Amino acid sequence: MNYKMVLNVLGKVFLLEVILLALPMIVGFIYNESSYMAWLIPMASLFVLGAPLSFIRVKNKAIYAKEGFVIVSLAWILMSAFGAVPFVINGALPSYADAFFETVSGFTTTGSTVVPNVETIDRSIQFWRALTHWIGGMGVLVFVLAITPGYNSGGMHVLRAESPGPTVGKLVSKLSFTARILYGIYMAMTVLLIILLLIGKMPVFDSIVHAFATAGTGGFGVKTESIGWYSTYNQAVIAIFMFLFSINFNLYYLILIGNVKKAFKSEEFRAFTMIVVVSTLSIALNIMAQVGNFGMALHHAFFQVSSISSTTGFSSTDFANEWPDFSRAILMVLMVTGACAGSTGGGIKVSRLVILCKSVTADIKRMLHPRSVVAVKFENEPLSKETERNVRSYFVVYILIIALSSLVLCLDINDFMTNFSSTLACLGNVGPGITKLNGPMANYALYSPYSKVLLSIVMLVGRLEIFPILILFTPRTWKK
Amino acid sequence: MNYKMVLNVLGKVFLLEVILLALPMIVGFIYNESSYMAWLIPMASLFVLGAPLSFIRVKNKAIYAKEGFVIVSLAWILMSAFGAVPFVINGALPSYADAFFETVSGFTTTGSTVVPNVETIDRSIQFWRALTHWIGGMGVLVFVLAITPGYNSGGMHVLRAESPGPTVGKLVSKLSFTARILYGIYMAMTVLLIILLLIGKMPVFDSIVHAFATAGTGGFGVKTESIGWYSTYNQAVIAIFMFLFSINFNLYYLILIGNVKKAFKSEEFRAFTMIVVVSTLSIALNIMAQVGNFGMALHHAFFQVSSISSTTGFSSTDFANEWPDFSRAILMVLMVTGACAGSTGGGIKVSRLVILCKSVTADIKRMLHPRSVVAVKFENEPLSKETERNVRSYFVVYILIIALSSLVLCLDINDFMTNFSSTLACLGNVGPGITKLNGPMANYALYSPYSKVLLSIVMLVGRLEIFPILILFTPRTWKK
Repeated sequence: MNYKMVLNVLGKVFLLEVILLALPMIVGFIYNESSYMAWLIPMASLFVLGAPLSFIRVKNKAIYAKEGFVIVSLAWILMSAFGAVPFVINGALPSYADAFFETVSGFTTTGSTVVPNVETIDRSIQFWRALTHWIGGMGVLVFVLAITPGYNSGGMHVLRAESPGPTVGKLVSKLSFTARILYGIYMAMTVLLIILLLIGKMPVFDSIVHAFATAGTGGFGVKTESIGWYSTYNQAVIAIFMFLFSINFNLYYLILIGNVKKAFKSEEFRAFTMIVVVSTLSIALNIMAQVGNFGMALHHAFFQVSSISSTTGFSSTDFANEWPDFSRAILMVLMVTGACAGSTGGGIKVSRLVILCKSVTADIKRMLHPRSVVAVKFENEPLSKETERNVRSYFVVYILIIALSSLVLCLDINDFMTNFSSTLACLGNVGPGITKLNGPMANYALYSPYSKVLLSIVMLVGRLEIFPILILFTPRTWKK
Repeated sequence: MNYKMVLNVLGKVFLLEVILLALPMIVGFIYNESSYMAWLIPMASLFVLGAPLSFIRVKNKAIYAKEGFVIVSLAWILMSAFGAVPFVINGALPSYADAFFETVSGFTTTGSTVVPNVETIDRSIQFWRALTHWIGGMGVLVFVLAITPGYNSGGMHVLRAESPGPTVGKLVSKLSFTARILYGIYMAMTVLLIILLLIGKMPVFDSIVHAFATAGTGGFGVKTESIGWYSTYNQAVIAIFMFLFSINFNLYYLILIGNVKKAFKSEEFRAFTMIVVVSTLSIALNIMAQVGNFGMALHHAFFQVSSISSTTGFSSTDFANEWPDFSRAILMVLMVTGACAGSTGGGIKVSRLVILCKSVTADIKRMLHPRSVVAVKFENEPLSKETERNVRSYFVVYILIIALSSLVLCLDINDFMTNFSSTLACLGNVGPGITKLNGPMANYALYSPYSKVLLSIVMLVGRLEIFPILILFTPRTWKK
């Protein structure tokens, strides 16, 4: 283990968080809030720790797979640990377990909250929640890579460990350029969304916060009724942008460099669009009698499908209490399938599911004709045996985690459906569950501190795609 | 496709069913029941169809993988189709969809019933339900292989398609001998169980019926309260035998030939025993406060764990209405894990799960040390890449079927938990679900005929381990 390198990168992450924490403090000043110590104390601690670490002289700049996993998982856990402090000092969430849960939920862009009355907390805290979404969506270390040159070879392992999806490709040969292009697209789309919301007469503060939460596919809002509080126009704008932010960002890059045809030919994009269209229509037909007319049924169906499949978790209606089980079951399936690889969304990722389906179909062909050679292709490239294998492993472990977490939570809350959907929502980084206890109008405060820590780990495991966290706790990782 | 061979084997299966149907008719005569036409009509039809088919002269005796899958899936579907007729003519289940569901549930050893009041139906019908369990448990075609010599090479493909588990080995070089040894052990254990139940003063008819249902890990009984109606001694005997019938029969063969040590060293056996012990203790502690004393809590916990993990589905208590969700969630996990390969039980099978865990652990080692060679062993033998691959495929498709079936059933019954556990119980060939609508004191009559057909297919898919049924409906199978 290249300890010096790991500590050096962590130091840089700490310094980044100092800068990030300054932003909500500024918001606090603007709104004349008194709780600036809530920001200064963690900022000072992070600076005292981060500055010396970031000045460690690293002779061996090598980062291998192992270091990549360790850096990413430690960075995310520690950023959340420090990012939770403002909630405690401010008093918004006096219990540290609650604050940690909320911060992990923010950075992992889950959006599960333990705040019972989100309208009453300080603006600075509301802003911090949204900012964690925005940073967590694209990735903390991708950001560090974007602003620090010199990691080209080893940085790839870090990018691979942090980025969602079965495979990670660089857009351009230089890694820091790739990271900057991604963040550039991300920023441009966020700004566009803010403008569109302002046009829809959403207040400035609300527009910024919701744009951050939409871009990161997070889901923290500033109203208990979530986006249901705003106009149908603004609901529609957010629904469309949730969809846009759950598409692989590489496609936007392809469009930018003029290769529009290739972008629209992406198998993952097509499969994802199919999933969204079929789910929207099925739900719309299922809730039509209840909503009254097909237009509004379609509107709410699309909003919720876009929200859940992008793993954002906003709501335009109280689906947990109002919708029939068929529609709610579709939402649960979408929680698992999730968004596209290389987006800010969570879940298993559509590309993995496409690969799984193709891979299993190939197996059936092999069973029928044992001697034939069956090649599996994805996005017009032959799939390596290793990728196929890893995708299957990922699926297996994902399902095992769902079973284990749902089971353990039953020791706390005696309602399987709630625990099952809490697990799906946290592991998929979605946010609300589908029962009256954990739905969009409820919150996760019902769980004990132990369950909150468990769900925090589940959220991290979901965001970092299982293996970094698993490897961090594998004794073999730390053997010489 | 070797059509002549397929038809020839099907003809033999039909003739076997003629003999099987004669047995409940004899039971009907003993109890002076008048409905003998219920047996004669399907017997005559099967004979008229089966006799000419079984005399087809087959020049090319080759059975390949494809023929194996097709023979097995067609045999099971057609046996169920004809086996359903007595229920309709007798009047026990006037609707053919109900009768088909009940017969598939019998042959697949699921034990999900649509009979609301099992005490009121004819003895001959009760016996037929139990007999379908007994035959379905060890396998229809294994029986045909046991009594017809000459299939040594091609028969292996049939055995592989019908037998549960990731790999199938012959005990002795001759296939028909292997099949006879298995059936011999099966019969001996069934007779032993009948004797032990008679010692416990269970009536003769009830003892035979319950022994058949236990041996096949089926679960059809003759009392609405299931085994809860009988003495604690008989409950304990059945609990132990459910466990015994869910162990790989190869281990009994090893014990018979004196290799006791090797039998107890089986990794699958050890893992299965662990699962049963841990689940029993967890449930016992969870229900202790409710039951009153640890002894009875342990008794009921073991009975239900043995019943569900062996995928039998008998009950000693109404766990669906009385137990907390933690215990019920454990039962759902056991529905999925299931029994050992090469037993009469269902589910994913413990061996597959052991292979999955080892295979995923190996993947993590490979991630940490990309250049190292990590070998995966199971039961002291290196695992082939193909077996690893197939086990992963199996798991993936198994989960997809659970999701799809649960979702579609929600269009019929507006309760996800009921539909989810119905799917788990039918796919795992368990029987009762875990809610008040489909639990051990309820039945599957609540579903529409469409849902019953869907669940029948799910049961067949579970018993034949997915691929035979999938391959039957793949157009490629029927291309020249």
